[in-house]
Amino acid sequence: MGDYLIGIDLGGTNLPCGIVTPDAKVIARHEEPTRAEEGVEAVIERMAKGVRMLLETSGIAPSEILAVGVGAPGPLDGMRGIVLEAPNLGWKNVPLSSILRKKTGFRIVLENDANAAGYGEFWAGAGRGCQHMVMMTLGTGIGGAIILDGKLHRGPDWTAGEIGHVVIADGGRPCACGGYGCIEAYASATSTVKRFREQLALGWESSLSKRDPNTITCADIFHAAKEGDNLAYHIVAETGRYLGLMAANMANLLNPERCIFSGGMIKAGAILFDAIREACQRHAFKAPAQRLQILPAELGDDAGIIGAAGVALEAVKKG
Amino acid sequence: MGDYLIGIDLGGTNLPCGIVTPDAKVIARHEEPTRAEEGVEAVIERMAKGVRMLLETSGIAPSEILAVGVGAPGPLDGMRGIVLEAPNLGWKNVPLSSILRKKTGFRIVLENDANAAGYGEFWAGAGRGCQHMVMMTLGTGIGGAIILDGKLHRGPDWTAGEIGHVVIADGGRPCACGGYGCIEAYASATSTVKRFREQLALGWESSLSKRDPNTITCADIFHAAKEGDNLAYHIVAETGRYLGLMAANMANLLNPERCIFSGGMIKAGAILFDAIREACQRHAFKAPAQRLQILPAELGDDAGIIGAAGVALEAVKKG
Repeated sequence: MGDYLIGIDLGGTNLPCGIVTPDAKVIARHEEPTRAEEGVEAVIERMAKGVRMLLETSGIAPSEILAVGVGAPGPLDGMRGIVLEAPNLGWKNVPLSSILRKKTGFRIVLENDANAAGYGEFWAGAGRGCQHMVMMTLGTGIGGAIILDGKLHRGPDWTAGEIGHVVIADGGRPCACGGYGCIEAYASATSTVKRFREQLALGWESSLSKRDPNTITCADIFHAAKEGDNLAYHIVAETGRYLGLMAANMANLLNPERCIFSGGMIKAGAILFDAIREACQRHAFKAPAQRLQILPAELGDDAGIIGAAGVALEAVKKG
Repeated sequence: MGDYLIGIDLGGTNLPCGIVTPDAKVIARHEEPTRAEEGVEAVIERMAKGVRMLLETSGIAPSEILAVGVGAPGPLDGMRGIVLEAPNLGWKNVPLSSILRKKTGFRIVLENDANAAGYGEFWAGAGRGCQHMVMMTLGTGIGGAIILDGKLHRGPDWTAGEIGHVVIADGGRPCACGGYGCIEAYASATSTVKRFREQLALGWESSLSKRDPNTITCADIFHAAKEGDNLAYHIVAETGRYLGLMAANMANLLNPERCIFSGGMIKAGAILFDAIREACQRHAFKAPAQRLQILPAELGDDAGIIGAAGVALEAVKKG
């Protein structure tokens, strides 16, 4: 008798899954491209195939699997297991849990992908051992997860945690959500690149000036910043300042123990994190600022798998 | 055998207290000025006197009182019953609970005053029957309380809920906290009056133009707005827009069921609340915006007493 979990991280591009032990170790892993263009049925069949592959390669019997957790793009109805809308998959009102349950025979627990990643860090990564944490995932947008009293705060509509769409600059930069001034419009990876390109277009000098601006990535900017490029350094530090302001907002509002940042951008290291910490100390009240640890995520690409499994384990414990 | 509570609302100016039933009715009330200038000992003695007066006038025996709740200015250490710092009382590290316990013989439960007022509305006012709510109290500053899953969210340092010091305008108006761009610097009663006076100083016409600007209060501005004064209307609606933006931030972040506003400013009525609701709908995502009810507080000056009693009742239940 085992008590393993399976975690699946349903992304727009890739579909990684893994078998996770009750102490959060990934002991088998499988991954293939999502190929959303093939349609709902094909993607869910690919998820079921992933589950079969995991069992086969690991030699673990189906009876040893407690449940399957799936982290999926929101908004979703976690109680009924329905993905309400996932623009990057082209999904609308997909009863993912019931379809996947029929295909695999396992209990399916559905969770918002940002929440799943946050729960992964909470369970087994940079959030280990704390009770109150906030995670921001920096990518095309800014995803968020809020854990209070050791539990994901989802809210009655399962939409809580949209940290990326907290307005920090009333009337400021336009955001993909249709609003203005959201933190996402300033400090996501995409926005960071955009701010850098804007400065190049204004004629500021940089070691990247000769590159086609459209080919410049966040990684290029971090690399240039580390090599001493002034403009790149300034842009990365500015991203950090915005994120630190947001961390301070979270500190004043929720008094969490940790604020964890994940996504490729955390590779910028000290240039980014020093700026985040400095701005947070400046904007937050003393007690919550002293309490708050600002940390990079630890689990990398496995956060989604581990977190989805962890959420499934919690659901099993609750019955 | 009764199971009454006593609630005390320790304010900078007044010191109201009351006997509260387990179903949140105030059945006896007493109030006198705080007179903080007389020192810590005198103020706490006045609180004890209030408790004795309540028992005398109501005829309720001390054995029928379960506990005494005190809402006090923060920051405070609720676990140890210490007011850490209360600038408007001139207090620092005052072990309020132990002193008041010695004077009265009752168990004392200490709570932040904004939290107590929020809990009062949650228990018996505009928050009745919901599980997730946010309250903002508009006065000199903006106080906040966050209730999630039916419980006050205090955070590990008991500093959570500083909604007034969430930055909504990076680099914006200076705030009393030393920061810039906090919602308090835009939408407190004090800030509303300040914004109105600024426009008068710029020469804009108003029915209040002939008044000495320093004598103009928030109530004057609301009154003028209701009478059709354009400038006053604009300023009140602008306050509403800021508060609606903040309500949207809360909706996106926490997905609460209600956002309740309290303080004298809510007397502005529809001019203020229409603007709040409109701005919130515009800035928040659809599902949390549809969920969120934006309401004026119902308990007025009794919120603090009732809430302090309610928090004490919760503490008694926990043991």
